[in-house]
This record gives sequence, C-alpha cells and structure tokens, in this order.
Amino acid sequence: MTVRPTLAVVGATGAVGTVLLRILSQRADIWGDIRLIASPRSAGRKLAVRGEEVEVRALAEDAFDGVDIALFDVPEEVAAQWAPVAAARGAVVVDNSAAFRRDPDVPLVVPEVNPAALRRRPRGIVASPDCTTLTMIVALGALHAEFGLRELVVSSYQAVSGAGQAGIETLRRQLSLVAGTQLGTNPGDVRRAVGDDTGPFPEPVALNVVPWAGSLCDEGWSSQEMRVRDESRKILGMPQLPVAVTCVRVPVITTHSLTVHARFEGEVTVDKAREIIATAPGVVLCDDPAAGEFPTPADVVGTDPTWVGRVRRALDDPTALELFVCGDNLRKGAALNTAQIAELVAAEKA
Amino acid sequence: MTVRPTLAVVGATGAVGTVLLRILSQRADIWGDIRLIASPRSAGRKLAVRGEEVEVRALAEDAFDGVDIALFDVPEEVAAQWAPVAAARGAVVVDNSAAFRRDPDVPLVVPEVNPAALRRRPRGIVASPDCTTLTMIVALGALHAEFGLRELVVSSYQAVSGAGQAGIETLRRQLSLVAGTQLGTNPGDVRRAVGDDTGPFPEPVALNVVPWAGSLCDEGWSSQEMRVRDESRKILGMPQLPVAVTCVRVPVITTHSLTVHARFEGEVTVDKAREIIATAPGVVLCDDPAAGEFPTPADVVGTDPTWVGRVRRALDDPTALELFVCGDNLRKGAALNTAQIAELVAAEKA
Ligand SMILES: NC(=O)c1ccc[n+]([C@@H]2O[C@H](COP(=O)([O-])OP(=O)(O)OC[C@H]3O[C@@H](n4cnc5c(N)ncnc54)[C@H](OP(=O)(O)O)[C@@H]3O)[C@@H](O)[C@H]2O)c1
Ligand SMILES: NC(=O)c1ccc[n+]([C@@H]2O[C@H](COP(=O)([O-])OP(=O)(O)OC[C@H]3O[C@@H](n4cnc5c(N)ncnc54)[C@H](OP(=O)(O)O)[C@@H]3O)[C@@H](O)[C@H]2O)c1
Repeated sequence: MTVRPTLAVVGATGAVGTVLLRILSQRADIWGDIRLIASPRSAGRKLAVRGEEVEVRALAEDAFDGVDIALFDVPEEVAAQWAPVAAARGAVVVDNSAAFRRDPDVPLVVPEVNPAALRRRPRGIVASPDCTTLTMIVALGALHAEFGLRELVVSSYQAVSGAGQAGIETLRRQLSLVAGTQLGTNPGDVRRAVGDDTGPFPEPVALNVVPWAGSLCDEGWSSQEMRVRDESRKILGMPQLPVAVTCVRVPVITTHSLTVHARFEGEVTVDKAREIIATAPGVVLCDDPAAGEFPTPADVVGTDPTWVGRVRRALDDPTALELFVCGDNLRKGAALNTAQIAELVAAEKA
Repeated sequence: MTVRPTLAVVGATGAVGTVLLRILSQRADIWGDIRLIASPRSAGRKLAVRGEEVEVRALAEDAFDGVDIALFDVPEEVAAQWAPVAAARGAVVVDNSAAFRRDPDVPLVVPEVNPAALRRRPRGIVASPDCTTLTMIVALGALHAEFGLRELVVSSYQAVSGAGQAGIETLRRQLSLVAGTQLGTNPGDVRRAVGDDTGPFPEPVALNVVPWAGSLCDEGWSSQEMRVRDESRKILGMPQLPVAVTCVRVPVITTHSLTVHARFEGEVTVDKAREIIATAPGVVLCDDPAAGEFPTPADVVGTDPTWVGRVRRALDDPTALELFVCGDNLRKGAALNTAQIAELVAAEKA
C-alpha cells in the first residue's frame, strides 16, 4: 500500500497519551496522518508529535472518518461507549482500558507473547492488558514456553501514574507536605499532614504503601487483582491457571514492580531461566546482586523493555522460581504495547 | 522478690533504643535501676526514661555489674562480642541482633507464639527475631495453631528505619532533594538528583523501591530473606517449612508491610481466619475494604500490635489464604518484643 495509514490517538492529553506521543515520535514512522483526540475540555490545545504541533480535536463521531487505526487511552466508560463507534466507522480500535479485555470476541494482545490472537477480532476491537499484568507477562510467556507454568503468586509495588495524571499530581503534592519534616514515626502524623487530599487513592501514598488498587469485587478482592489473574490466563491461553495476587500502591511516580513466585511443571534451573530471560525479546536480565545489580523503578523508568532481576530457585521447591520484575507502566504497561499492536495491524494491511 | 530487677539497655541511643526508652516509660514499671549504655561516643549524654534524665555509660565489662537483664540493641558484631560478656557477669541477655538467632542453644522468642522456648537458655542469651519475621509471625502462629501451616510465600515492603537511624536520615535527605520537582518519569533523574548519597541502601530509596536488604548469601538470596525463612521455621518449630521470600525496601520511615500467601493442611475459611486473627493477642484485624479499611504504615506506626487486613482465600486453592500485614518495626519488630521477653524473664525470677 502506498498510502500510509491514518492513526487516531484518543486521550492524547492524558498520562498514557503523553507518553504515546513521545513513543510515536521515536519509533519507525509508518503513519500518515496522526489525529489527536481528547475531551472537549482539551479541544484546540496543540501537542507535539513527530516534531510538529498538532491541534487536539474533541471526541465526536466524525473524528474517526478516514481513520485506519484508533488507539484509545481514555477512562473505561468513555472507551466502552466510543470504541464501538470508531469500529463502526471502519477503524481498528486498540483499547487500553479494561472495557473489553474480558470479552471473548476481543483479543487481548501482547506482541511478544500471543501475536496470533490478533487475527480473530470480530468486533474490530483489540484490547491491551492492564499495566500490572504487562509488567511480568513478557518474561513469564518466555519461561512458560520452556518450562510450562503451573501456578503464580504475585505481589505488586504499583506506581502512582497507574492512576493517571491525577495520581502523579497527588503524590507530588503530598511529598511537598511531608519532605523536610520529622514525620513518619508517630501514629497519624502523615495523615494529618496530608489531610483529606488523597486524590485517586484511598489513603495517603507519600511515606506510605496502600494495599488497594481499583474497585471492590467479590470476597474482598480488588478489581486490579482480578485483572492480573484473568488477563494472565487469557494471554497465556490457560483458563485454569492458579493465580494469587495482592496489589499494593507505593510512592513511586512511574514504573511498576512485581515479586513473582512462579511454579512450573518440572524442575527448573536458574541458569536456564536466566538464559531464557536474557534472550527473550522485550526483556532485559539485570541480575548480579554481588555487583549491586537488580532492577529498580529509578533505573527502569523511561525504558521500553521489562526488566527482570533477583532470579532464584525456591529453596524448598525445585519447580519454582522467584523473580523481581520492573516495567514502565506508561510505556510497555500501556502506550508502547498499543503502539506495537497498531504496527502489527498496519503491517497486515500493507 | 522485693528488690526490683536492674535492667540495662545497650544501644540506648539508636533507632531501636530510642523507641525502647519510650516503651519502658509507658509499660507497667517493674524495673529497679534502668542503666543506659551505648558507644563511648555517647557517654555522658542524658536521655529521658520514666520521666527522669539518665546518663549514658560507655559499653564496658563493669557496666554489667549488678544487672539482672540486659537488652542489646547494637550492631551484630558488637552484640556477638559483648552479649557473652554480660551473660558471664550474670545478666540474662535479650539480643535484638542476628548474632545468636540461629544458635541452637539460644531460644528465639515471640511471647505470643513460643513463650515456653524461653526456659532453655544454656548460654544465658535469648534472641529476638528480625523485624520482618516479627511483622507476620504473631498472626501466622495463631493461624498455624488452628489450620496447620504447610507453605509460605512472602513479599516485604520494608521501612527505612529497619536500617537504623542512618536509614531514616537517608530517606529524609533524599526526599528533600526530590520533593517539589518533576522528577520520576525520565531515566536516571532520581539517581542524578540523589547523587551517591544512598546511605545504607544500594540504590536511591526516595521515589523508588529497592529489592535488596542485607548481605549476599548463596545462590542470590539476601541475608534478610534467609532470616525470614530460618527464623519462621525456628519460632514455629517447623524446621522443614517451605518459605519463599523476596525482601524489598520502600520509602516509608517506620512500619514494615508484608504480603503473605499461606497454604495450610486442609481447607480454610475466611470467616474462621478472621475470627482467629481478631481474637489473637497482639494482633488487630483491620479488614473492611468496602469501608476503605486495611492497614497501612501511616496508621500502624507507633502502635504495639501487628495489623492484618485484606484477608482472602486464594481463588484457586481452598487451602491458602492471602494476607496483608503491617507492624511497627521499631516496636513489635524490635523494642517491644524485647521488652516483653524481659518482663517474662523478670516474672520467672520473681
Ligand atoms: N496509567 C497507566 O499506567 C495505564 C496503564 C494501562 C492502561 N491504562 C488505561 O489507559 C486509559 C488512560 O489512562 P491515563 O492514565 O492516561 O488517564 P488520564 O491521565 O486520566 O487521561 C485520561 C485521558 O482521557 C481523556 N478523556 C477523559 N474523559 C474523556 C471524554 N469524556 N471524552 C474524551 N476524552 C476523555 C482525557 O482528556 P482531557 O485531558 O481532555 O480530559 C485524557 O486525555 C485508562 O483507561 C487507563 O485505565 C492506564
Ligand atoms: N531497626 C530495626 O527495625 C531493627 C529491628 C530488629 C532488630 N534490629 C537490630 O537492633 C540492633 C540495633 O539497630 P538500630 O536500628 O537501633 O541501629 P542504630 O540506629 O544504628 O543504633 C545502633 C546503636 O548501637 C550503638 N553502638 C554502635 N556501635 C557500638 C559499640 N561499638 N559499642 C557500644 N554501642 C555501640 C549505638 O550507639 P552510639 O549512638 O553511641 O553510636 C546505637 O545506640 C541491630 O542489631 C539491628 O539489626 C533493628
């Protein structure tokens, strides 16, 4: 095809959208027009992409005329309403929200793990996984292909930007209130300093960790925890995989971290596991504690791959591995994964 | 006994010692003299305990003359050298360091879980567990008594004061450098702001999480992780218990948090688990996510019990529970547990 596909970015002004524009400016430029869309509040703002200023349009039906692929980075309810509209106008939608991830007629795609799932998309919609799932799933997909997964126990250390721009601003405000003080050793002092300004979080997040993300599901589980279980199963094509998750918010701006206890079909070795991780596309092995090498958000933020360190075999179970994994939740956890999916879709059409 | 026992606090000026003096001022006053000891650097300083100013003495053999019970809150190598000296002078030593915890002739005691272990102490030394182990072990001891533990998978969210006064000061310095900035979304920006000033930690801890605590042991494990495994086994009297641990430092001043995946002998119910936790001495159940109730360090710091929330049964394994546990690492994690042990020893003698 000589005509380059037209791309729409819906939610171009948000935390994910902002990073997506940066990514689109950095990757191989396969796009014709790039159209920027957000709420009517942002209409008329100009944002830079590929070195040019582009005016933001308000979300509306005709905004999708002539669009080949539309990347949706908007709240779930907005995606639920508008993705079908864009699809009906002929665009392939790649949605970053939770709105369609569990729909059996919507593939949930991680290009390094299950690219073939992209082929069957009867609704014209493709979903990109939750950022917490994406932090670990590329490495786990590679380990699964070799060892055969049997069980996952996961704990998260989630950055505030997982809750969007509002999350970032909330932590920054709270940090200014507690920095330079002697707070943090007496009951209630952080809470008093921060006041009721907890933003999108149920508790203060500065100088604190908060074991909650998302909304309340059955039997005390959070929606974030259910997502990690449901999405890991769907991406790996293992609907019965046992997955136990506890999600915790930490005072980090960007980059989610996870501890993973992964049990496999038979014995594993650390050497083989490290070799798989070191050679898997999209994953970096960073694992030499003697040299002080393990991934941390401060080093991983702004990078494309997910980083794996602290690779150990469980001392009491030769079939289990322990991992510590970090991934930039706005890049591979969101914007990058959708850009990669869009490139695969564009390649099909070419 | 009409003469009240003499207590020595060795390391009275440290992070744990400071909290211990506060605790001694708050609990039932069963002590005669309270003698304060630290390094020669601190000799002559005056510290408040029980409302009186007491002068700090330098650590020396004769500092233990007439001492009935000596609480040691000093670095491991200082304890290794001086605890036997104090014991030889007739004091019962309660040591908070890792120096003696694995010694088969030194009991490792948590008063709520294994008080009977206190009876056999041929070296005259009693050890108090690591603060990370103590965060979960009171709740787990109670659950084990009812359900029978089979396996633990644990991830920690450890506060900087676990690394003593130097840890607290490092985070406070780093927070002042990053607060009010836009740092945290680009590679290396936190590291550049913080510079080489990482204090007792291998990486910046402000706006970061660091998957390392302690020194390097075999096969990539950290000493902190090995301790949680070894000590849980010793306290529960289960030398074969499978325990998989990953320890991570977070930017919280005081109060460690843990996620725990605990597998038991047979089916468990959340109702029974909550009842056990709610009635166990030294533990608080804080678990109503619908009302926004779960423990966080900001609420738990400065309190005596360990707090348990997010109690769920694993969705794919009716024999496993998921828990989120918080405990003040300077109180139950250190000073309080030694004060409780000292009270038990004093009661024996009475
Ligand atoms: N943050 C992450 O790590 C992450 C990771 C994976 C997936 N996601 C998902 O990605 C989506 C975007 O997240 P975010 O973190 O970027 O959120 P955000 O920072 O709050 O940005 C929201 C974006 O949606 C736009 N928007 C809101 N209401 C709209 C409406 N009624 N019509 C049109 N546009 C509207 C906003 O435009 P205005 O600026 O004009 O209001 C903004 O561009 C969410 O579904 C989120 O769950 C986020
Ligand atoms: N922090 C925790 O959460 C925690 C929890 C459980 C167990 N522990 C253990 O408790 C112990 C104390 O920890 P911390 O956090 O309180 O450490 P810290 O804040 O660094 O305090 C160290 C204390 O030891 C004293 N000291 C150091 N070298 C000495 C020497 N050569 N002779 C006599 N006294 C000496 C110091 O006195 P000066 O002020 O005079 O130097 C100070 O009182 C360590 O073994 C630690 O592993 C700590």
